[in-house]
Amino acid sequence: MVGEKAISKAVIKRLPRYYRYLSELMDSGVERISSGELSGRMHVTASQIRQDLNNFGGFGQQGYGYNVQYLYEEIGKILGLDKRHNMIIIGAGNLGQALANYENFEARGFVTKAIFDKNPELSGKKVRDIQVYKMEELEGFLANNEIEIAALAIPKTGAIVVAQRLVNCGIKAIWNFAHTDLNLPKDVMVENVHLSESLMRLSYNINRHEMEQSVK
Amino acid sequence: MVGEKAISKAVIKRLPRYYRYLSELMDSGVERISSGELSGRMHVTASQIRQDLNNFGGFGQQGYGYNVQYLYEEIGKILGLDKRHNMIIIGAGNLGQALANYENFEARGFVTKAIFDKNPELSGKKVRDIQVYKMEELEGFLANNEIEIAALAIPKTGAIVVAQRLVNCGIKAIWNFAHTDLNLPKDVMVENVHLSESLMRLSYNINRHEMEQSVK
Repeated sequence: MVGEKAISKAVIKRLPRYYRYLSELMDSGVERISSGELSGRMHVTASQIRQDLNNFGGFGQQGYGYNVQYLYEEIGKILGLDKRHNMIIIGAGNLGQALANYENFEARGFVTKAIFDKNPELSGKKVRDIQVYKMEELEGFLANNEIEIAALAIPKTGAIVVAQRLVNCGIKAIWNFAHTDLNLPKDVMVENVHLSESLMRLSYNINRHEMEQSVK
Repeated sequence: MVGEKAISKAVIKRLPRYYRYLSELMDSGVERISSGELSGRMHVTASQIRQDLNNFGGFGQQGYGYNVQYLYEEIGKILGLDKRHNMIIIGAGNLGQALANYENFEARGFVTKAIFDKNPELSGKKVRDIQVYKMEELEGFLANNEIEIAALAIPKTGAIVVAQRLVNCGIKAIWNFAHTDLNLPKDVMVENVHLSESLMRLSYNINRHEMEQSVK
């Protein structure tokens, strides 16, 4: 089982992208692909691809190529996508609703079981078929349902308090969209999506590009 | 002017986080901070902080600390936040609306001027005070307005075609939420936010954590 081998953090960061490309190849009926062809599609060097995928055993011999489905499934296992992950979303605003509406997440095994919002007027409403509950119902819900992931789709204010409530209920994985660091115990996994930082990186690149142009 | 010095990509990636912490320090009235104190808050080593911030000149002498506002402003300049960036959003779905509703972006100089959606029924509606236009109006709007950034808040299907239309109109910066690579000319800057890849990284960490627990 390849999952027990240590794989570097940098490779892990790239795995979801391989997974996406392999999924697209499968959709178009491709069964085998060489590192050279994959390199052309992904705009990554073939040697990088060979190095990365060597982590998954001795597939991809010269002139033979990678078995697309096998690689897809192995990477899926490493990423934990062969299991079902129950999720809740905190915040029924636009972002929370957007997350609840992504049917693709469900196809990957991430199933949203409930949404919580501090606005009691939203209680009982549904996004797709997912019910919105009051924040007071959070602890009771988590005691009676096996939930692994909580997505925090709420503003910075309140995020730290809510994160602490989630941790108190035994939640070990938080997908954090609030624009703040949560500083939770080490055994709680946090994946941050800081949108404004992403926008700042874009703005940095615009700025740098303009400077380069003006130098030319 | 520090902006012309070459700063490594890794430092650039960390700058928005420094910017956020410095902004919070300013809000709480802190004028000076030592690398040690900042280290404690940010959970980064003090030596990392000193190294990173040394890119911005000889501030932060031993025992004296960093001038919070100066550093905040210098990092802001590097990130291009001292300029106004006009933006449009493609897609008036939940995600597009969420982006349009973030007032914080505007506070940082990112001003959304219009939203475009392929559903003609949304045309003329408003999100905050931002009008939704028909996709057919895109080229005309871009010809008559100075827009720098386009946020692509639409599904994968269609994203590549729309991105090409934007590039044809001279857009040089795309904030891409569509779950696909855009493969645009090199002078077009693309910042990807692939939410499902972020979720997969979280799932990988859950998986790895469970394995580690079961070994114990």
